[in-house]
Amino acid sequence: MRDDYWKISQCGKAPKLNKPVLIEGLPGIGNVGKIAVDFLIDELEAKKLYEITSYTFPHSVFVNEDNLVELPIVEVFYKKFERKRDILLLGGDVQPIDEISSYEFSERILDIVQKFNGKEVITLGGIGLTDIPKKPKVYCTGNNKKIIEKYKDELISTNLYGVVGPIVGVSGLLLGLASRRKVDAISFLAETYGHPMYLGIKGAKEILKILNKKLELKLDINKLDKEIKDIESQIVKKTEQLSEVTKQIALKKFQKKFGKDIDYIG
Amino acid sequence: MRDDYWKISQCGKAPKLNKPVLIEGLPGIGNVGKIAVDFLIDELEAKKLYEITSYTFPHSVFVNEDNLVELPIVEVFYKKFERKRDILLLGGDVQPIDEISSYEFSERILDIVQKFNGKEVITLGGIGLTDIPKKPKVYCTGNNKKIIEKYKDELISTNLYGVVGPIVGVSGLLLGLASRRKVDAISFLAETYGHPMYLGIKGAKEILKILNKKLELKLDINKLDKEIKDIESQIVKKTEQLSEVTKQIALKKFQKKFGKDIDYIG
Amino acid sequence: MRDDYWKISQCGKAPKLNKPVLIEGLPGIGNVGKIAVDFLIDELEAKKLYEITSYTFPHSVFVNEDNLVELPIVEVFYKKFERKRDILLLGGDVQPIDEISSYEFSERILDIVQKFNGKEVITLGGIGLTDIPKKPKVYCTGNNKKIIEKYKDELISTNLYGVVGPIVGVSGLLLGLASRRKVDAISFLAETYGHPMYLGIKGAKEILKILNKKLELKLDINKLDKEIKDIESQIVKKTEQLSEVTKQIALKKFQKKFGKDIDYIG
Amino acid sequence: MRDDYWKISQCGKAPKLNKPVLIEGLPGIGNVGKIAVDFLIDELEAKKLYEITSYTFPHSVFVNEDNLVELPIVEVFYKKFERKRDILLLGGDVQPIDEISSYEFSERILDIVQKFNGKEVITLGGIGLTDIPKKPKVYCTGNNKKIIEKYKDELISTNLYGVVGPIVGVSGLLLGLASRRKVDAISFLAETYGHPMYLGIKGAKEILKILNKKLELKLDINKLDKEIKDIESQIVKKTEQLSEVTKQIALKKFQKKFGKDIDYIG
Repeated sequence: MRDDYWKISQCGKAPKLNKPVLIEGLPGIGNVGKIAVDFLIDELEAKKLYEITSYTFPHSVFVNEDNLVELPIVEVFYKKFERKRDILLLGGDVQPIDEISSYEFSERILDIVQKFNGKEVITLGGIGLTDIPKKPKVYCTGNNKKIIEKYKDELISTNLYGVVGPIVGVSGLLLGLASRRKVDAISFLAETYGHPMYLGIKGAKEILKILNKKLELKLDINKLDKEIKDIESQIVKKTEQLSEVTKQIALKKFQKKFGKDIDYIG
Repeated sequence: MRDDYWKISQCGKAPKLNKPVLIEGLPGIGNVGKIAVDFLIDELEAKKLYEITSYTFPHSVFVNEDNLVELPIVEVFYKKFERKRDILLLGGDVQPIDEISSYEFSERILDIVQKFNGKEVITLGGIGLTDIPKKPKVYCTGNNKKIIEKYKDELISTNLYGVVGPIVGVSGLLLGLASRRKVDAISFLAETYGHPMYLGIKGAKEILKILNKKLELKLDINKLDKEIKDIESQIVKKTEQLSEVTKQIALKKFQKKFGKDIDYIG
Repeated sequence: MRDDYWKISQCGKAPKLNKPVLIEGLPGIGNVGKIAVDFLIDELEAKKLYEITSYTFPHSVFVNEDNLVELPIVEVFYKKFERKRDILLLGGDVQPIDEISSYEFSERILDIVQKFNGKEVITLGGIGLTDIPKKPKVYCTGNNKKIIEKYKDELISTNLYGVVGPIVGVSGLLLGLASRRKVDAISFLAETYGHPMYLGIKGAKEILKILNKKLELKLDINKLDKEIKDIESQIVKKTEQLSEVTKQIALKKFQKKFGKDIDYIG
Repeated sequence: MRDDYWKISQCGKAPKLNKPVLIEGLPGIGNVGKIAVDFLIDELEAKKLYEITSYTFPHSVFVNEDNLVELPIVEVFYKKFERKRDILLLGGDVQPIDEISSYEFSERILDIVQKFNGKEVITLGGIGLTDIPKKPKVYCTGNNKKIIEKYKDELISTNLYGVVGPIVGVSGLLLGLASRRKVDAISFLAETYGHPMYLGIKGAKEILKILNKKLELKLDINKLDKEIKDIESQIVKKTEQLSEVTKQIALKKFQKKFGKDIDYIG
């Protein structure tokens, strides 16, 4: 497991959590998952539990608004509730790129879930379309029928087979690997525009509506629109700071798939 | 051997097998080997013995027809016979891509063969042509003269030297590595169309005819034609779910080699 | 940490150093950092302390002016001063390219800094522009506000946020990783022409002026102009000896980013 | 050192060797080194000492003239002489491609040299020109002045600085790494045509003349011309069997460097 490639630092004393649900939203198509989870962390005033850095992450540092450098980081937050299951939130700047690192990372996240006696994982992501969707649909898939049944809703289509290719990266692996640990896992994927520079805020909003309803989070989701400007500039800055190469590859794949001219948006 | 990158899970109690022959058919040129082995698993009603996943496999999950996710997997099945050697069948969604993983995987498969006292390995594959062959020829090569002599037949050409480049991946390595373990190994390669989206069903059929005759399997090979639709949609779905990048590379290589325009087939 | 991939050979007896500051200048954009550190090593008549080679460095040897081969190498020098902190200088032919090697290397360098009780790290680099800057500006960023405050100067802009993308490689990682070890670290980045074959001597000079002033090095910086010819031919020779592939990638990135025609300079 | 990735099998009983000189000739530019060493192995009727396979070699098998498969292999041969130093010959199908494997392999070869108390290494290679040279010049470089002085000859130019880029791969690394073990090492590089499909037989001949003279091997070098047809078809077959991708990269680099149209030769 190449333990020395991973640094998982606990922030403060470990809380006692009540069968927490992990909600994952790392960078990906349209950054749909990341936008949703970053919003949840802010709105729920979640507390930081772990900081994760890794030798498998990009070998570079970001410059922040205070003109200080930051290593690329992934974070786990938690939010305690009175009368229901607590929540773990997984967000961050990056996700591991190569096969082995992606598997290793996902196993470590599941270790954390199980350490706190968590029994459920929700991953969030986007489905890239050739055009900007007016009203993005949300699909779901899971690692067993029970959890899909549990989250069934008129807002969600369960007919994902044939709609997407494989679910690549941590959003997919967490589902596959959770299965072996008898941890139920479901993924919500919202339609978004497949262009690598597009921010899938509309898609994130649709997912947030579902989470709000199903997990009874009492969020004011319209705040998302107000906070967009802030989130947008933050993500765009970091995204721009990612390797040129990564961006070129993403753009090329987009062009090849959709036959569109490539121009940076915005 | 990076043991923690490989999970080999046994399914049920280990059977007693009589000097089993391993028949390998993993994804490859025209998916010839995969089509043949998947057909054998179905027709022989073989039983699952091992499920293999690996951190070296694609870091993604497939969505199946029940809208559930599945990790990319390789499987070993077995079929017991009354009065002859039993059979082990190796099939799956993927095969390891990089050098080291491909060697490691092949050694593990040979460990399984030897664990059951197997003394023979048959690998199946395709030879990519620039056009769709009307009646695909089948060639063979092996890791010693004895096994080639054993399988000699009017249906098989043993004159492979100069016809193909190296045999890349597990179909080739199993032969080379078996040699050191004193395990006889032979490969049957059927001509097929080299286009990455083409399914070499005709080639698979020619190979199945040979296996049917030589191993006295009493198969109704014409069933293959009937089952094609089913197999086809299954493979196409999974293939489409493979990384766009992988597909692009395959298409490019095809174009470079054959100077043909690239268009997805079907 | 893959210890057997790294050879760190000490040259002679370890000196006693007085809270040394490490100044890093490895190959990078415009080779700004390398030019500055190589000049410091010469002018300060610094003594060699470590030679570092690595299996992660290019698998090739350079041919030098004496017609002898040399493995690609990174070196640490030191310079003792009478009444102030000593200096460690990190220069070399290459820097690790992939993520993991870059992290591993940076950790080892920080081990050295701490071994000699060093508490401060200064990294040097370039910011690639689309044109040759007439008077290159110098920016800085750091891993805490204290060190930025300490080096504040009318010659330096601290407003780096949004000016550069991430700081890639050792110059960035040393800052990020030093933070965890409570080692203060700052980076000086000078504007230079982004073309991969351009030597950022003017930018290096601006950085040297700042170091001269802040660290009271009493350097005759105009010597840099005189020594340029020498440095230039030396760097160009080694750069030319680097992998064609690396160069092609650098050129392509430059072209994509700036939309300029690519021609080798000089 | 990832010991399980390397299999070094001794063939027969280890001979007693008299301070053997290792002569290396693995695939490379124009296959100059390989042609020369393969000729030496044949002409000197050298005996096989080691077979080396590796998980870092291509994950494929060759099909030979007997229609049998062979793993890609590197071999060490030896030749004993009456009144002078014995010879070790290093030849094979491939050489490791990535940085780490290339370093690991070279260290293992030097282990073998030192195991037999060898004190000298000679590596052979080509220098790629834009045109076919009529009379290829031979250059040399070494890891110390003494060995260059020892092999000085009117047939050899020692003025290699600036003529070539770095010496990439095992031919270069053996020199660089031998230095640390106090093993003298020299490299003879003959001009050849840089096209990836060209066989540098003329260059190999010039190198053989030098080895014949300096090591007093009493070879009939004109035999090389007679044996060319044989060697040629053998190398071409194996080369053709190498990964298409590798070939494409080589062709592209050639075109980029020399601005020539790319067509397969022969």
